[in-house]
Amino acid sequence: MTDFFDRSLIVHEQLRGKIGIHSRVPVQSRDDLSLAYTPGVARPCEVIAGDVSRARDLTIKNNSVAVVSDGSAVLGLGNIGPHAAIPVMEGKALLFSEFAGIAAWPICVDTQDASEIIETVRRIAPVFGGINLEDIAAPRCFEVEAALQDLGIPVFHDDQHGTAIVLLAALLNAAAVVGRELTEMTAVINGAGAAGTAIARLLCCVGHDPSVCRPMKEVIVCDSKGAIHAGREGLTPEKEELLRYTNQANRSGKLEDVLQGADVFIGVSKGDLLNGSHIKSMSDTPIILAMANPIPEIMPDVARDAGAAVVGTGRSDFPNQVNNVLAFPGIFRGALDAGAQRITEEMKLAAARALAACVESPTADLILPDALDSRVAPRVAAAVAEAS
Amino acid sequence: MTDFFDRSLIVHEQLRGKIGIHSRVPVQSRDDLSLAYTPGVARPCEVIAGDVSRARDLTIKNNSVAVVSDGSAVLGLGNIGPHAAIPVMEGKALLFSEFAGIAAWPICVDTQDASEIIETVRRIAPVFGGINLEDIAAPRCFEVEAALQDLGIPVFHDDQHGTAIVLLAALLNAAAVVGRELTEMTAVINGAGAAGTAIARLLCCVGHDPSVCRPMKEVIVCDSKGAIHAGREGLTPEKEELLRYTNQANRSGKLEDVLQGADVFIGVSKGDLLNGSHIKSMSDTPIILAMANPIPEIMPDVARDAGAAVVGTGRSDFPNQVNNVLAFPGIFRGALDAGAQRITEEMKLAAARALAACVESPTADLILPDALDSRVAPRVAAAVAEAS
Repeated sequence: MTDFFDRSLIVHEQLRGKIGIHSRVPVQSRDDLSLAYTPGVARPCEVIAGDVSRARDLTIKNNSVAVVSDGSAVLGLGNIGPHAAIPVMEGKALLFSEFAGIAAWPICVDTQDASEIIETVRRIAPVFGGINLEDIAAPRCFEVEAALQDLGIPVFHDDQHGTAIVLLAALLNAAAVVGRELTEMTAVINGAGAAGTAIARLLCCVGHDPSVCRPMKEVIVCDSKGAIHAGREGLTPEKEELLRYTNQANRSGKLEDVLQGADVFIGVSKGDLLNGSHIKSMSDTPIILAMANPIPEIMPDVARDAGAAVVGTGRSDFPNQVNNVLAFPGIFRGALDAGAQRITEEMKLAAARALAACVESPTADLILPDALDSRVAPRVAAAVAEAS
Repeated sequence: MTDFFDRSLIVHEQLRGKIGIHSRVPVQSRDDLSLAYTPGVARPCEVIAGDVSRARDLTIKNNSVAVVSDGSAVLGLGNIGPHAAIPVMEGKALLFSEFAGIAAWPICVDTQDASEIIETVRRIAPVFGGINLEDIAAPRCFEVEAALQDLGIPVFHDDQHGTAIVLLAALLNAAAVVGRELTEMTAVINGAGAAGTAIARLLCCVGHDPSVCRPMKEVIVCDSKGAIHAGREGLTPEKEELLRYTNQANRSGKLEDVLQGADVFIGVSKGDLLNGSHIKSMSDTPIILAMANPIPEIMPDVARDAGAAVVGTGRSDFPNQVNNVLAFPGIFRGALDAGAQRITEEMKLAAARALAACVESPTADLILPDALDSRVAPRVAAAVAEAS
């Protein structure tokens, strides 16, 4: 892997910026200049001054997303600060462009105070049609996202919901592969941070009538101390909140205890946690989504040898890569196209279903489309726009 | 002009955004994706985490500019707010791209409080290599710009300094046309806002030893009440400050009074102010730069008929257009190339001289290069980088 990371550094040194900005109008003549800039530009300005909503018709606001990070939880690197986060946010921006034709710009904020981040996003919002929050540590990410839902444009923390949506799509197809109903299954999530919480919420359909559409029968969330259950002392407010919809049987114990008999393992914490005997303790057709990077919670061959029916990871060198790029471009494309003011639970579920449907005949080695599959974003976008 | 403005509105309605963002890396294979995004991107992130200054080598920070406005003084339209300012800031961004290959992004801030604007710019600065302040009302623009000079990247209010630099270039060539030394001339500036103040400062070389390089012998600034002089009551602090270097003879009176015998008239206020007799009252070879838009302070033919030796305006349909696009792309290009932390007076003077030198043989109808002349930005950039 050293060579690979060295190559990435060289690419970054050569490019000095992975994105560029271009003009969408010709600037060949004085007439061109006068139409796109002064004096002609005064007219659209006046129109928007009279009706702010016209900014969507006349400016990039209909197609622009800010990729906002405070650099506090970047990849597996942790709190490396806003400057060190720029390469990731540029990477995100280029994926928005490549997969959805969206003009996304990185905004790395030089503060890690939740209220200052909220205030900053509010102040810079006029030119943007959406806000993609990225790599912001929990629980700050929850506070920032919740506080900005009234902004009038979608504000979406991708580490939470993007991951959850792709995960649910993977589960829908994995359930088809093992010939069972997801609604009859129990999942154990290891990791109670941003991603784990969002996955639990989506799998339990928080924000809906649970009796109508809860995708899974039971979800148990574990952190480093084991299952989050009602008897545990010292739970944070966020973990207390998880208990409103997870662990309905109030099981306690370590990860390996609650994993016994479970149908699905979802790993969003640290790697190299499980061995074959853990897999064998699960139900007959275990589904393993081991997403720790770069080392999964269990290596796919070990899991399969122990009887796992379907295995996915976060890595591109194994089958079934759970990759956010399958979701966020289409989700924002759909939300922008629909002029949505926020990303609702319905839109997230629609995105997951559309993403799952991109695989026509799921198999154990094919529960998600390829990350580079160009059909995905338009299909997800259409479903999201329809659901908005 | 109605048809023209209608055409501009149609162009804006069709485009819905005059700029776009593109990837500068291929995203065709999993390898591409892994180098530009995860997992490879972790390496440049780690390098920057260890040394923040490496962000310039590894990210778009070496080539990115925020075009920041609060929408408080947009074109001649006034305080139309941040949303209505977007078309102008997009236009500015596309000119940065077209003329200097700079990735400029519009940031329209939803506040008109100086300290909030300052705070917001500080917070979003990590990803930017420069800040172009735009269309911010005086005196707030002075406060915002001054407070941000310690940011470590150039912060430049283009309405002030861009205008002043192009104006000085125009004067250098106009002086050559009339065969006189600029250092022996007196200018009257009508308008004591952002542009007028910046022009006065540059023409008096504020920030330098005036005895060394002051480009003009005398500058008198007028506002709507006439000449700004030491005896006047109720002067704002900004106008008091002007008296440190302008109106050394402390002349009082209306614009028409101080214009008598002056060599240069510079209009940066409102149109249709002067007539032929005003021009006739000036020196033998009056130089008139009447930049009010869309109606100049005096129409060029009227000025010439009354004896003006050289006439420039802000309009593209007359000769000698004083257009900021001649300056800001090259200035930021040069500052970014040099890794400059601010735009100094030396850099502004160098830009003006380089811009003037783009006209090899100045004539009364050719004191500035064409706004579309692609030689200009690289030459200005080289001079600015050299002077930094």
